[in-house]
Amino acid sequence: MNIVLIGAGRLATCMGKALKKGGHTIQQVYSRTESSAKKLAEALECDYTIQCEDITTRAELYVVAVKDDVLPELLPQVVQGREETLFVHTAGSVPLSVFEQSGAQRFGVFYPMQTFSLERELSFSQIPIFVEANLESDVEKLRTLGSSLSQKVYVLPSEGRRRLHLAAVFACNFVNHCYARAEQILAEENLPFDVMLSLVDETAAKVHELSPRKAQTGPAVRQDHSVMNKHLALLQEHEEMVREYKLLSEGIGDLAGQL
Amino acid sequence: MNIVLIGAGRLATCMGKALKKGGHTIQQVYSRTESSAKKLAEALECDYTIQCEDITTRAELYVVAVKDDVLPELLPQVVQGREETLFVHTAGSVPLSVFEQSGAQRFGVFYPMQTFSLERELSFSQIPIFVEANLESDVEKLRTLGSSLSQKVYVLPSEGRRRLHLAAVFACNFVNHCYARAEQILAEENLPFDVMLSLVDETAAKVHELSPRKAQTGPAVRQDHSVMNKHLALLQEHEEMVREYKLLSEGIGDLAGQL
Repeated sequence: MNIVLIGAGRLATCMGKALKKGGHTIQQVYSRTESSAKKLAEALECDYTIQCEDITTRAELYVVAVKDDVLPELLPQVVQGREETLFVHTAGSVPLSVFEQSGAQRFGVFYPMQTFSLERELSFSQIPIFVEANLESDVEKLRTLGSSLSQKVYVLPSEGRRRLHLAAVFACNFVNHCYARAEQILAEENLPFDVMLSLVDETAAKVHELSPRKAQTGPAVRQDHSVMNKHLALLQEHEEMVREYKLLSEGIGDLAGQL
Repeated sequence: MNIVLIGAGRLATCMGKALKKGGHTIQQVYSRTESSAKKLAEALECDYTIQCEDITTRAELYVVAVKDDVLPELLPQVVQGREETLFVHTAGSVPLSVFEQSGAQRFGVFYPMQTFSLERELSFSQIPIFVEANLESDVEKLRTLGSSLSQKVYVLPSEGRRRLHLAAVFACNFVNHCYARAEQILAEENLPFDVMLSLVDETAAKVHELSPRKAQTGPAVRQDHSVMNKHLALLQEHEEMVREYKLLSEGIGDLAGQL
């Protein structure tokens, strides 16, 4: 497909590279920030613009990968003059209906569920992509586009996608926060976070085979209050970690009780 | 080394297999539960006993891998008559001093930091092992034993090990709890936890390269309250998850503010 990228941040960069690899043409990049637009356009060997009115009208698809809260304001501007072309956004938690006031006649969502960093170039082949669109024919177009990047393409309406995004916050952002707390605790002992990596990897590998609930180990699932109290004593100068330790241990106990 | 295993649970089983693979002789298994003792002895092709007095006195090392809270009561029983042989326990959060009332003259700790399940046979080569002992010569013995299993052996006193174990609770048990919450949320949408695996893997892979703090993404680190409020609305029937969501998002915000 002949594609224009609206946005030049982390997600736009990763998507642009993946789409190009998948055999599609990135015709142009638009971003309000010239340095970002230029950098991504160079990486994708295409044109760029920082003016909405200079976005080409001759694309088959506009992929809008910008911050969630920019969408309502930005969409009418980029849609204007391109009302009959397909627009998609890429946000996990923004409903399809964000397009309703934009003037677009054909619109959809193309959400690759992953944590993207500029530092890491990811293979999209295992990244699940969730699509939807207002027209049935465009659902099929997006499903085909998804299949050119990934083996895992699902059609999922907005409400389900929002819940999926919420689950992803737990499985990624909150998980990463727990890593960050471990790093903080180790730093006080002058130990590098590296000593945790084998444990981190096995914890992730385990849930490929076992349900997370059944995979649980440690003092909380054993309700070993003697160990837990010693841990809390070590944390006493970190009130915020004490609260996290107590709440998460309680949660582990609750889920174990329901098994 | 010529080794007796005291205990036949998850950790004893994984350790026994690893020690055998590492070229050591498991002479005998002791457990109060006959079925467990027998099963592990068969796997290790060795004798077993369920009577403390029948534990052989002719071993070079006794590895005590039992539940933390059983140690203070069990140690004097198994040490009696074997006072001059080296004893180690394998618990992350139990100090070396647990041996002080046991009668043992030579004692130490041999703590492989990992999450063990009976369902998964693990290679020990990347598992960090933390050792200490009351005698310097035994520290060296344990370091050598550790090196026969793993490339990563560290000498670490009890206080540091306790903090390490606390960090491991965050990086493993609390992480796994976040996976379990994601599973719970997805189940309400009839989506299998499998859709999360690529995200789970990348979240773990990322912290091999980036500090967890710098690897953070998502609504909380962006302080995107519009998305967070929508997530909280979805969770409204799950009070416990609302509390977790708020507290962890707060923590993410705090750590981001300190960067």
